[in-house]
Amino acid sequence: MNEMKKIKVGILGATGLVGQTFIYLLKDHPWFEITELAASERSTNKTYYEAVLGRWRWPVEIPDKIKNMEVKDCKPNLDCDIVFSALDASVAKEIEEDFAKSGYGVLSNASSHRMDEDVPLLIPEINPQHLELLDVQKKNRKWDGFVVTNANCTTTHLVLTLKPLNDWFVLDKVIVTSMQALSGAGYPGVAALDIIDNVIPFIKNEEQKVENETRKILGEMKGSKIEFANVAISAQCNRVNVKDGHTECVSVKLRKQANVDDLIEAFEEFNPLKGLNLPMAPNKPIIIKNEEDRPQPKLDRELEKGMASVVGRIRKCNVLDFKYVVLGHNLIRGAAGASILNAEYMHYKGYLEEYL
Amino acid sequence: MNEMKKIKVGILGATGLVGQTFIYLLKDHPWFEITELAASERSTNKTYYEAVLGRWRWPVEIPDKIKNMEVKDCKPNLDCDIVFSALDASVAKEIEEDFAKSGYGVLSNASSHRMDEDVPLLIPEINPQHLELLDVQKKNRKWDGFVVTNANCTTTHLVLTLKPLNDWFVLDKVIVTSMQALSGAGYPGVAALDIIDNVIPFIKNEEQKVENETRKILGEMKGSKIEFANVAISAQCNRVNVKDGHTECVSVKLRKQANVDDLIEAFEEFNPLKGLNLPMAPNKPIIIKNEEDRPQPKLDRELEKGMASVVGRIRKCNVLDFKYVVLGHNLIRGAAGASILNAEYMHYKGYLEEYL
Amino acid sequence: MNEMKKIKVGILGATGLVGQTFIYLLKDHPWFEITELAASERSTNKTYYEAVLGRWRWPVEIPDKIKNMEVKDCKPNLDCDIVFSALDASVAKEIEEDFAKSGYGVLSNASSHRMDEDVPLLIPEINPQHLELLDVQKKNRKWDGFVVTNANCTTTHLVLTLKPLNDWFVLDKVIVTSMQALSGAGYPGVAALDIIDNVIPFIKNEEQKVENETRKILGEMKGSKIEFANVAISAQCNRVNVKDGHTECVSVKLRKQANVDDLIEAFEEFNPLKGLNLPMAPNKPIIIKNEEDRPQPKLDRELEKGMASVVGRIRKCNVLDFKYVVLGHNLIRGAAGASILNAEYMHYKGYLEEYL
Amino acid sequence: MNEMKKIKVGILGATGLVGQTFIYLLKDHPWFEITELAASERSTNKTYYEAVLGRWRWPVEIPDKIKNMEVKDCKPNLDCDIVFSALDASVAKEIEEDFAKSGYGVLSNASSHRMDEDVPLLIPEINPQHLELLDVQKKNRKWDGFVVTNANCTTTHLVLTLKPLNDWFVLDKVIVTSMQALSGAGYPGVAALDIIDNVIPFIKNEEQKVENETRKILGEMKGSKIEFANVAISAQCNRVNVKDGHTECVSVKLRKQANVDDLIEAFEEFNPLKGLNLPMAPNKPIIIKNEEDRPQPKLDRELEKGMASVVGRIRKCNVLDFKYVVLGHNLIRGAAGASILNAEYMHYKGYLEEYL
Repeated sequence: MNEMKKIKVGILGATGLVGQTFIYLLKDHPWFEITELAASERSTNKTYYEAVLGRWRWPVEIPDKIKNMEVKDCKPNLDCDIVFSALDASVAKEIEEDFAKSGYGVLSNASSHRMDEDVPLLIPEINPQHLELLDVQKKNRKWDGFVVTNANCTTTHLVLTLKPLNDWFVLDKVIVTSMQALSGAGYPGVAALDIIDNVIPFIKNEEQKVENETRKILGEMKGSKIEFANVAISAQCNRVNVKDGHTECVSVKLRKQANVDDLIEAFEEFNPLKGLNLPMAPNKPIIIKNEEDRPQPKLDRELEKGMASVVGRIRKCNVLDFKYVVLGHNLIRGAAGASILNAEYMHYKGYLEEYL
Repeated sequence: MNEMKKIKVGILGATGLVGQTFIYLLKDHPWFEITELAASERSTNKTYYEAVLGRWRWPVEIPDKIKNMEVKDCKPNLDCDIVFSALDASVAKEIEEDFAKSGYGVLSNASSHRMDEDVPLLIPEINPQHLELLDVQKKNRKWDGFVVTNANCTTTHLVLTLKPLNDWFVLDKVIVTSMQALSGAGYPGVAALDIIDNVIPFIKNEEQKVENETRKILGEMKGSKIEFANVAISAQCNRVNVKDGHTECVSVKLRKQANVDDLIEAFEEFNPLKGLNLPMAPNKPIIIKNEEDRPQPKLDRELEKGMASVVGRIRKCNVLDFKYVVLGHNLIRGAAGASILNAEYMHYKGYLEEYL
Repeated sequence: MNEMKKIKVGILGATGLVGQTFIYLLKDHPWFEITELAASERSTNKTYYEAVLGRWRWPVEIPDKIKNMEVKDCKPNLDCDIVFSALDASVAKEIEEDFAKSGYGVLSNASSHRMDEDVPLLIPEINPQHLELLDVQKKNRKWDGFVVTNANCTTTHLVLTLKPLNDWFVLDKVIVTSMQALSGAGYPGVAALDIIDNVIPFIKNEEQKVENETRKILGEMKGSKIEFANVAISAQCNRVNVKDGHTECVSVKLRKQANVDDLIEAFEEFNPLKGLNLPMAPNKPIIIKNEEDRPQPKLDRELEKGMASVVGRIRKCNVLDFKYVVLGHNLIRGAAGASILNAEYMHYKGYLEEYL
Repeated sequence: MNEMKKIKVGILGATGLVGQTFIYLLKDHPWFEITELAASERSTNKTYYEAVLGRWRWPVEIPDKIKNMEVKDCKPNLDCDIVFSALDASVAKEIEEDFAKSGYGVLSNASSHRMDEDVPLLIPEINPQHLELLDVQKKNRKWDGFVVTNANCTTTHLVLTLKPLNDWFVLDKVIVTSMQALSGAGYPGVAALDIIDNVIPFIKNEEQKVENETRKILGEMKGSKIEFANVAISAQCNRVNVKDGHTECVSVKLRKQANVDDLIEAFEEFNPLKGLNLPMAPNKPIIIKNEEDRPQPKLDRELEKGMASVVGRIRKCNVLDFKYVVLGHNLIRGAAGASILNAEYMHYKGYLEEYL
């Protein structure tokens, strides 16, 4: 990889929590260089420092170079090769399409296009072959650019653990209950009065996302379409008083015989990106913790720079076959880090060449 | 009910969190009067005020009459008719047996005897007929007194919702994930450093308790034994940063056809103690909340004076048949209040007469 | 007091957190009856239940009678005798003046008029003689009604403890650092992400309010004006992760000699409303806790139904003379309860007669 | 500095929270190498991994080399040149003296010897000349080694801000109210039930430590003794629900005229270790934040790797002269990091030569 000339990236929705995470993760990136920041009207024509005054949530200073960059409109006239989108779903659809139409590669964290038939919902360890949809997308939409999405934060960590189980034992059914962190709701997000001494057993649209996205990601390319995985999935999603890191209690039914050690082996051996040297990729996507009370968000969310899904308590289930707990960082592997890893993988595979 | 002469009750383990809850709930009870407080050596020969100094957790003053009572040894020479046991499981077995042997009625919140074949694990709305075991217990153990237990806090609220489903539609399978409050671990219990900004996906022995107790409580008397309910149950138990109130996400598979409205009707009509006027009984044991984001511990745990199981989000499950959320107070309906309700029911049925 | 005919009260800003607290506190009030609810446009023409859907924060059901009341505009055509104002400061000034002009008695919790020269900033235990300002107000403003304000939540609990010290020993200087609860910021107020695992050492305008209001409240009527108390006051105000209850660390310098026991005596004997039987009044406005680690918000904020200032840790200060901690409920004694107590006191003194 | 041969260090009390912090901070230290770990009986003869199982609180894995080291007794037969003491005050006095007697240099974080007349209470930016006491100590105690202490966590951040004020304007009086983090109480420390939704306005012995230590640290060597600074100091210490980072609201009276800009200049220019290249030293010991709501523990405690005191809200005080807020990491600059910096400074000055 010639690192002399970095790929110029813009960030759409740069002032929000996911936008900030892109900046945090990209500030020393060997391949990508932030050249543009864009956001809604409220922030435009300000420096980034002014735009996020009182709203910057990472416990480090804003990088000096970024501080003084001007925040621009989310219009497709930015000086960059690709854009990372951290836009709110309410506006993402149209803006992302404008950018794709104008020839930008769009790596989107928004939910707007995730379930579109011709849009990859990409996790490079799981469904890299879904990138074939880009040809379909180009044909359908006549765009010079493209839209590639990454999954919802809760979906991401769930499906990273389901993939090896599906490969080895063929998944049949999945029940998952999530305990999701505050930062998943953005900023300002959840009111402190609502969550102190409390659990909120509801997150709008979240359960549907987990159920649908998982089946798409695990699906197979059949001709120009994805055939969704034949897995029944049921999710219950809760908000708990945790800053970062979603915890998920999972039960699975498998079509093939297995025992707990088989599952451990399947998790341990899962590492499809090994050797590719993608900067954002974890050394291992699944980390197993053996202590009986792990994983825990505060202690484990930062493993592998926030890019791992941390699994523990793998054991028999009286109703389905097995149960376990998975924990992962929602802002990093579950959002900005996922988009960046997608871009890295696409660059590695040569998909970005034509945009540079 | 002649209320002139109150039943004299002692509290074993009076200084702990559940012991304190007994005092809080019994202070103006129309039938019962606290005449004795007993605890471990650390507290004996002190006034109750001294014994709980810096440890009293209810946000009201200790009742004046209780403040100056002497804390005694947990020896069966107390001046009372029945005892409520809030003892730690590590010592409860022996002490409770001593009291039963010596002719006391023991209403126990401890786990030690819950699964004994000849000990009722009583929830009066569900399995009052299990009190028939007292004859078996008397024959087996030659005790002048008795031991009647109430269930684990998480079990209690789960099984209160399962009972009407089982009656109407016959339960087949249950998967439950709990998010349990801090007070369930007693005092001092969980370290603040362990739970701030965190979830702990493990509570020692809790999952087994939920799985086993539920099947016993839903079981039927067959001759002198309980035949456990033929239901598969799987539990995942988590500690979250909530003071009081356990939240449980439940999925159920039923043997009979039903729809969401049927479940609502089954929950709504469930009220077996109606009309008995037991002081601790809720007006309705199951409260349904229709808001999409309820029940929530902070907002709903005190409904019906903490004696209700509050249900919400009843909906279809893609894997089993239905799913819902149930929330209830772990210290009241899930512990001390349950023991008191058991005593009230037994008194109403005449089981306590011989001890007065 | 003839309780046959209750005084009809309206609540302005009825849907916010303080508005809700008025409803919570007035639902069984022996003298006052809520006949009108008013709020901003967003809520008008809805039932109260609809207007606060998902925003009702008290852990009890909304009173049935209130649930179905229509929320009206904040226009002075309401069917009531007096209004309690829980309006936001940004709109309170004009609306409250409209009501006063139209002949309503306005008991305001808003800050807009607190520092006006002809408006009483009333705490009946402290400065009942400031009600003489109502004559001045009438003359100045030509209103048929009136505006009487109560103090900021932090000021209220501070000044309740300063009053007996000033009476007995003459205050010279006061330094106070507050640790204020979330509910003081209204709803939704503080973002959970901002306060989890955090302290925010800033509350807009709060320090000035504490410093200025205290000197007015402790001031004396000189002719038609209040001469502010000659006390130097410095405040530092912080937001902490507590639901309700402001904790304040106070240091005082006195002009007369005193020792710790003298201070205790001054606090203990302070009870100017004793014997008046005002329904909202605490039995004692100052409660002293002797335990070395009290008062604490979670354990002490509800003493005296939330109407007490709870004091502890009275001891020598190396810099000024003495220091102590005071804690009190910010929504009750610090807001809605204060307004209600003011109305009760005014009714007792006959100030409301002409409005009935 | 010849970095070829590292100084061998042992950690006393290696399993506690401060002990863990020493390990976390020293794992890649250029001058020091951990060769010994020692702790109480409970942990001895276990590997470090076993000894801290379920108690390791840093969100990174235990360094591999450390994991398998044996935990030894706190006896002065360890293979190391100096020891860092993270012992509990209840045992520190005797053990530390044993080590000093046996020729070890002891860098202690415990409170036991801090106020001893012949023991430096060292903060190298403030009172390096107090190291002259080591001659006195040697003469008094006949030790081959030495004991040098660092200050209490709250004292440390306070006095780092007081030093430049004293140098420039001569301090007269100081009032400070602290809001201290949970980790300051060690592990398990504070019960979650005690601090959720709460403030505890009491920390045993803390206020005396702050008041006394500050005057010693700011004191001057007069012959063989320290003359304490002639400053009146009053502290109120509170525990709040924050993981790490103590926040302190300070008011100061100065003997010389100054204005806010002068204070800022004094803080900004304070950097006595500049240019010494001590590995643990911050680039600047005092960081000023200009935002009106800073410093905040969650956002600012990690600045300068946790070694800075972060100051904000410098403004006039109505009672004393000025007030401001200071925030700092209690486990790093307030504990383990302070000891390490002391050792670095002593090494730089040649004090450790004879122990190597």
